[in-house]
Amino acid sequence: MAIQDIRVVIVGAGIAGLKAASKLFEQGVQNCVILEARARVGGRLHTVEGYKGRKYDLGASWHHDTLINRLFAEEAELSRENDPRFVFDDDKVVLIDEHRGRLDYDGDLKLEIILDEFIKSIELEFNQKLGVPDSPYKSLVLKYIFEKRRFLTDDQIRYLPQLARYVELWHGIDWEILSGKDSCYTNQGRNAFALNYESVVNRIANTFPQEWLKLSTPVTSINRSRDVIVTTEDREYHCDYVIVTVPQSVLALSLKKDKKPGRIEFNPPLNANIQEAFKYAHYGSLGKVVFEFAECCWSKETTRIITLAHSDADFALKARQAGNWEQLVEDTVSIDNSFTAWKFPLLFVNLAKSTGVPSLVMLMQEPLTQHIESLPDRKAVFEFFRPVLDKLMVTMGSKPVANGLSGSSVAKGSAKDAPMLKNIIATNWSREPYSLGSYSACHPGDDPLTMVTAMMAGQDSRIRFAGEHTILDGAGCAYGAWESGIREAEYVLEGPSPAPPGMIV
Amino acid sequence: MAIQDIRVVIVGAGIAGLKAASKLFEQGVQNCVILEARARVGGRLHTVEGYKGRKYDLGASWHHDTLINRLFAEEAELSRENDPRFVFDDDKVVLIDEHRGRLDYDGDLKLEIILDEFIKSIELEFNQKLGVPDSPYKSLVLKYIFEKRRFLTDDQIRYLPQLARYVELWHGIDWEILSGKDSCYTNQGRNAFALNYESVVNRIANTFPQEWLKLSTPVTSINRSRDVIVTTEDREYHCDYVIVTVPQSVLALSLKKDKKPGRIEFNPPLNANIQEAFKYAHYGSLGKVVFEFAECCWSKETTRIITLAHSDADFALKARQAGNWEQLVEDTVSIDNSFTAWKFPLLFVNLAKSTGVPSLVMLMQEPLTQHIESLPDRKAVFEFFRPVLDKLMVTMGSKPVANGLSGSSVAKGSAKDAPMLKNIIATNWSREPYSLGSYSACHPGDDPLTMVTAMMAGQDSRIRFAGEHTILDGAGCAYGAWESGIREAEYVLEGPSPAPPGMIV
Repeated sequence: MAIQDIRVVIVGAGIAGLKAASKLFEQGVQNCVILEARARVGGRLHTVEGYKGRKYDLGASWHHDTLINRLFAEEAELSRENDPRFVFDDDKVVLIDEHRGRLDYDGDLKLEIILDEFIKSIELEFNQKLGVPDSPYKSLVLKYIFEKRRFLTDDQIRYLPQLARYVELWHGIDWEILSGKDSCYTNQGRNAFALNYESVVNRIANTFPQEWLKLSTPVTSINRSRDVIVTTEDREYHCDYVIVTVPQSVLALSLKKDKKPGRIEFNPPLNANIQEAFKYAHYGSLGKVVFEFAECCWSKETTRIITLAHSDADFALKARQAGNWEQLVEDTVSIDNSFTAWKFPLLFVNLAKSTGVPSLVMLMQEPLTQHIESLPDRKAVFEFFRPVLDKLMVTMGSKPVANGLSGSSVAKGSAKDAPMLKNIIATNWSREPYSLGSYSACHPGDDPLTMVTAMMAGQDSRIRFAGEHTILDGAGCAYGAWESGIREAEYVLEGPSPAPPGMIV
Repeated sequence: MAIQDIRVVIVGAGIAGLKAASKLFEQGVQNCVILEARARVGGRLHTVEGYKGRKYDLGASWHHDTLINRLFAEEAELSRENDPRFVFDDDKVVLIDEHRGRLDYDGDLKLEIILDEFIKSIELEFNQKLGVPDSPYKSLVLKYIFEKRRFLTDDQIRYLPQLARYVELWHGIDWEILSGKDSCYTNQGRNAFALNYESVVNRIANTFPQEWLKLSTPVTSINRSRDVIVTTEDREYHCDYVIVTVPQSVLALSLKKDKKPGRIEFNPPLNANIQEAFKYAHYGSLGKVVFEFAECCWSKETTRIITLAHSDADFALKARQAGNWEQLVEDTVSIDNSFTAWKFPLLFVNLAKSTGVPSLVMLMQEPLTQHIESLPDRKAVFEFFRPVLDKLMVTMGSKPVANGLSGSSVAKGSAKDAPMLKNIIATNWSREPYSLGSYSACHPGDDPLTMVTAMMAGQDSRIRFAGEHTILDGAGCAYGAWESGIREAEYVLEGPSPAPPGMIV
């Protein structure tokens, strides 16, 4: 086992780790190493190539909160008209119901107006009084409907719950396990779609010496004596500081004894604050499926299309007859645990509108993500989503999808101008050992502040943390991770000099 | 001069005064009088009758913030399907530009998305740091455009300022004199259009003995000795408490020496806190014009239609060339002070959609309101708005307006299916001595809290205030005034019993 003395070890070459390294080098630190378990940099920022060289981000793909996002501000400075680094893609949302077709801005349905009021009612629920207990997002939807049913039409009662579920595609988890308290944020400005995040990642990864970067090098343990000792398969790094940027899901493995890939053994174990924080923190599984077509033969009216989950025709009647909202919650518990595409709201990003690429990028949520990511092949993924995809295409002025996946015989009678599916790309985040899902998410009763506070305090003065789960502004976002990398680099730069021999601080 | 001993005098029979009386009677107070200067109750709630018995509210006409509005909750309890007391009328807003026609949800223009971002930027401007100095709303619009011009298209730059001016129709004042800090609230739930407010007013006015009510009885002075002495033309009321509910605009007259109708002489004068508060408080002039047609021959697509003010075709160029945002503000200062209909954003409430009545209720703002309210007759009002009205009609699928006002000869060649204007009703709030405008509004540098705090503290323990300007939640709204009436009634009920002889508290 080789031993190497080093000033700072960074665990993980996601955007938090890369930015921390960049900042340290910029400020004169000469002696640093980034240990990355994967064979690539970027972590949960991952751009892949598809049909005819089209590029997609399977991880984060937007710059959120662009009014306050400093990473975005940097990108904006670099963007050129002939070489744009992002595109603002917020626009109207098309809403599609399996049976009724388009629901957006029906002059009588006015679902968007009701949704706004519902969201405001959540805000009032938790902000008017302190100490209101959390409940699942689904309960809040049904409670609102029960309480306001006099002021809602049957169709509003029927479709609002399904529209309200759009937040699942933000949080990456189903409405039954989503914290009501944490469900609705306000965006701080428009969202900008990155073209693509690999250019962001590579730009930052090129700002420090390339020999700092050790790919395919998982860390197995972090031991604290006077120094910090970070151990990999064949080496011990004795350092002043370590910045641990592994995902919250991977850090959680350290709390258990089971040996799993990615698990880091902490010695002494993670401190009591951190252990406590994990009781009030969860992790979601936003997943994506990219449907690549030969050409666009559907409407370029909008970028965002949501297909709503199936709604019960008797739901309005149930809501009007219910004696209390808890009863309504019970009435809507599904006993059928099978997976079908119309059981979940799905967000389709219509790249044909925003970037001109004839592909749809579909976002899905836990537990659907795990199901889809476990399917054996592209064909199975296609067959799963085909009913929704066909409805979407027909609603958007096209014909149903023609299967042009390699190995498929194109169905006879499929019209010439039907959208010809050439390829499918699906994520695998929930099964990859170094991600185990997408990003932090709150279940009912969780407290995002507890985790952030514990992470910011660190394991001790030498063992530090960065990443999307360690910061409040930008939590769950690329720019939040990036900011946390700056924060920890600054901590190291401004921090106490190494302790004198024999003293552990 | 007759002298009368009484427990409580209420000055003003608007909804604040009526509700205070109602509450006092309900709680057993037997000895109360309401002195109202006008010959009617309701104050700035005023329902009038027009063509063929159609009814309109010339003052407040909505229940705002219906998630938290307790007055609305009462009305909702009383509403019946066959006798509705309100209608939720929020829906999509149609935006009309003089030259370009409809601007709403143009897939490329996306003005509503940009407006949302701009509003969020104001929130960030004032909430991220303390002590940020206020500036006119117009400056904030131009500052946003200057700073974000890279991210905005020419058309977005051109039309956003005109769309952003929609807030003028909330505050009742022009964007140049509107406080940026106070410009954008969030609604607490949908708005419900009252059918009509006279039923609200009459309901409350019937909950106490009718002999309490003295109409056409202006108060001339309020003197404080051991008792409070409220003087009218022919009587002195010696009372324990007086609740003064006159509008802020009328109360302001008490600070000056000039004898004007409605002015109340306070002796001793209004206290230092109140005098100070008036330095940071203003009053607006929202006005209305009702256009009554024989039949509806325009689109019932939406309730709300905004005609945008004229925009400068060179504005985007100016914004891109400006060296700083202050220069952009200077560039857009108009030197032409004449009034034309296309110089102001106007909100048309399309009653044909919400209540089925073929009338448009137009909202306007200071200084346009004062100009319109000074016009000699309906014909002049019609001619002033005719260009906008015709554009609106044509854009909404109709023909230009045919003048069918009594005394007009219907223009030859006016098509059979053109909307036939039968009557115009305009407000007169800015010229009525007992209102002098519409409701409180903030100019740059104003502080709404100072006035509310001073009003809630009262002149002293016996001379109290109620009304829309005396409360924070519901400021400027009917329900805010109503809540303030409850507050002051409760103060009287729970307050100290009358002071012993010789002592002034």
